[in-house]
Amino acid sequence: MNLPKEVVICEVGPRDGLQNEDKVIPVDEKVQLINKLSDSGYQVIEVGSFVSPKAVPQMASTDEVFSKIQIKQGVEYRAFVANLKGVERAIECGCKKVKLNVSASKKHNLANLNMTPSESVSKFKDCVDLALSNGLEISGSISMPFGSPWEHKIPINDVKDIVKAYLNVGIKEVSLSDASGMAVPLQVYYMCTEFIKEFPQVKWILHFHNTRGVGNANILAGMQAGVTWFDTSFGGLGGCPFVPGAEGNVVSEDVIHMLHEMGVETAIDLDKVISIAERVSLIVGHSLPSYILKAGKSSNLIR
Amino acid sequence: MNLPKEVVICEVGPRDGLQNEDKVIPVDEKVQLINKLSDSGYQVIEVGSFVSPKAVPQMASTDEVFSKIQIKQGVEYRAFVANLKGVERAIECGCKKVKLNVSASKKHNLANLNMTPSESVSKFKDCVDLALSNGLEISGSISMPFGSPWEHKIPINDVKDIVKAYLNVGIKEVSLSDASGMAVPLQVYYMCTEFIKEFPQVKWILHFHNTRGVGNANILAGMQAGVTWFDTSFGGLGGCPFVPGAEGNVVSEDVIHMLHEMGVETAIDLDKVISIAERVSLIVGHSLPSYILKAGKSSNLIR
Repeated sequence: MNLPKEVVICEVGPRDGLQNEDKVIPVDEKVQLINKLSDSGYQVIEVGSFVSPKAVPQMASTDEVFSKIQIKQGVEYRAFVANLKGVERAIECGCKKVKLNVSASKKHNLANLNMTPSESVSKFKDCVDLALSNGLEISGSISMPFGSPWEHKIPINDVKDIVKAYLNVGIKEVSLSDASGMAVPLQVYYMCTEFIKEFPQVKWILHFHNTRGVGNANILAGMQAGVTWFDTSFGGLGGCPFVPGAEGNVVSEDVIHMLHEMGVETAIDLDKVISIAERVSLIVGHSLPSYILKAGKSSNLIR
Repeated sequence: MNLPKEVVICEVGPRDGLQNEDKVIPVDEKVQLINKLSDSGYQVIEVGSFVSPKAVPQMASTDEVFSKIQIKQGVEYRAFVANLKGVERAIECGCKKVKLNVSASKKHNLANLNMTPSESVSKFKDCVDLALSNGLEISGSISMPFGSPWEHKIPINDVKDIVKAYLNVGIKEVSLSDASGMAVPLQVYYMCTEFIKEFPQVKWILHFHNTRGVGNANILAGMQAGVTWFDTSFGGLGGCPFVPGAEGNVVSEDVIHMLHEMGVETAIDLDKVISIAERVSLIVGHSLPSYILKAGKSSNLIR
């Protein structure tokens, strides 16, 4: 079993986690959380999104959050954008990295936008140009490449077409986002192996939700295929957009605990991550689907 | 990634799950559950244990349960025993398969029994003789071979000594039981690979608890090492003996869902398993740490 010596864990809780909450979290709470995340050793933090405040009120304060966080050298502070307006807001408040998204479900995309996913991506050209000409980095996400609730499995060639469309508009960092929680390890292994081989110029990020309990097994399979970048969320905050009440993203502290116990380094301080998750539970006002918060580290011995 | 074409899932909920509940479940409820389990296609069901009713009141009715269940041809109905008295009770009520257990923690065993784990196993000789001479099958379990809350990691040679002790008393089926939920996939892969190579005559069973969220990843790693027998519990019922409030065994319906989505066959009807877990939740009177119960199967499409 070949695992990498080290991986990069990208904390997406401030965006993908908090946007799923009913309660809008105050700016200062978000700023404190993000400062604690950078202090704990994270190299990548997804701070928020620049999207319609009507559609996602929890993310309306992202501009203000960006202006208040302590920027730590070497940390990538990332934001989600949906269109040109989002890129403009990112530039305005000093955000240096934006991420676009398209759904891999052809059926869903055609029904909603009357375009295939690849056609949607080709429309991102002006977002990419604006970002790059202002010194921002830009990446692309593909949601549901491992399966969607409209098609179950998605043909791998459909996903490849989207990757090619991203490359065509100048994007070389691609996140595979299993937002519907339908990926299984064998599939993750084979898809990632094939993608890495066919698109060696792409930096791959895997973003799993633990909707059906196999998020950590999927990360294991992703590492075996050679992927070394993974999104996680504090306390597992988040949800499945298509299944009300289902669990959310893979849990940062559970993933980091698993990695460290296997000797895979992250440069992140697990104890600090655990205390952040405890804080998040207080802020959102409910328990979180985190195993390590309940059980503690396996190195906590009985004396 | 080499996975087996089919695996055997052993349902331990009636024993390892229910024994962890405060509420004692009526015999008729247990009998109905076990009959539903055999009807859903399980080939192995751990019905209960023949241990002190004072120590484990939830299992006091195991003799009666055995006398009332509908025996389905080809299904192994297994029980946990601690000593000769347990084997006698098994013989008396028609149980055909018993399982012994020892802790891999030398520290714990020495403190409690003033014997090493291997010495404990050598004392099982009369249990084995009594079982075999009465036509019962007998297996041995090793709890915490992947780590214990007294030592953290357990030296692999200590575990091998226990396996040799089991072989010495005539036991060739060995279950590795991560009751403390400390195993991680890389370790599972390497230990199982080594054990299979060194003891090819042993039938291995992996018994994981999902205490720290990596139970399904451990099953994946076990399959990659060549193990094809796994214990699971309906709804994930159970617990960690050393961490109050921590989650229990790996979840039958989550494991079976993962396996079937990867094309690994089990001969078990997942829909029936889901309805059993729903029933268990009603019987025990609380929610269960099952992902599939919350999210449903990933083949449930939006129309």
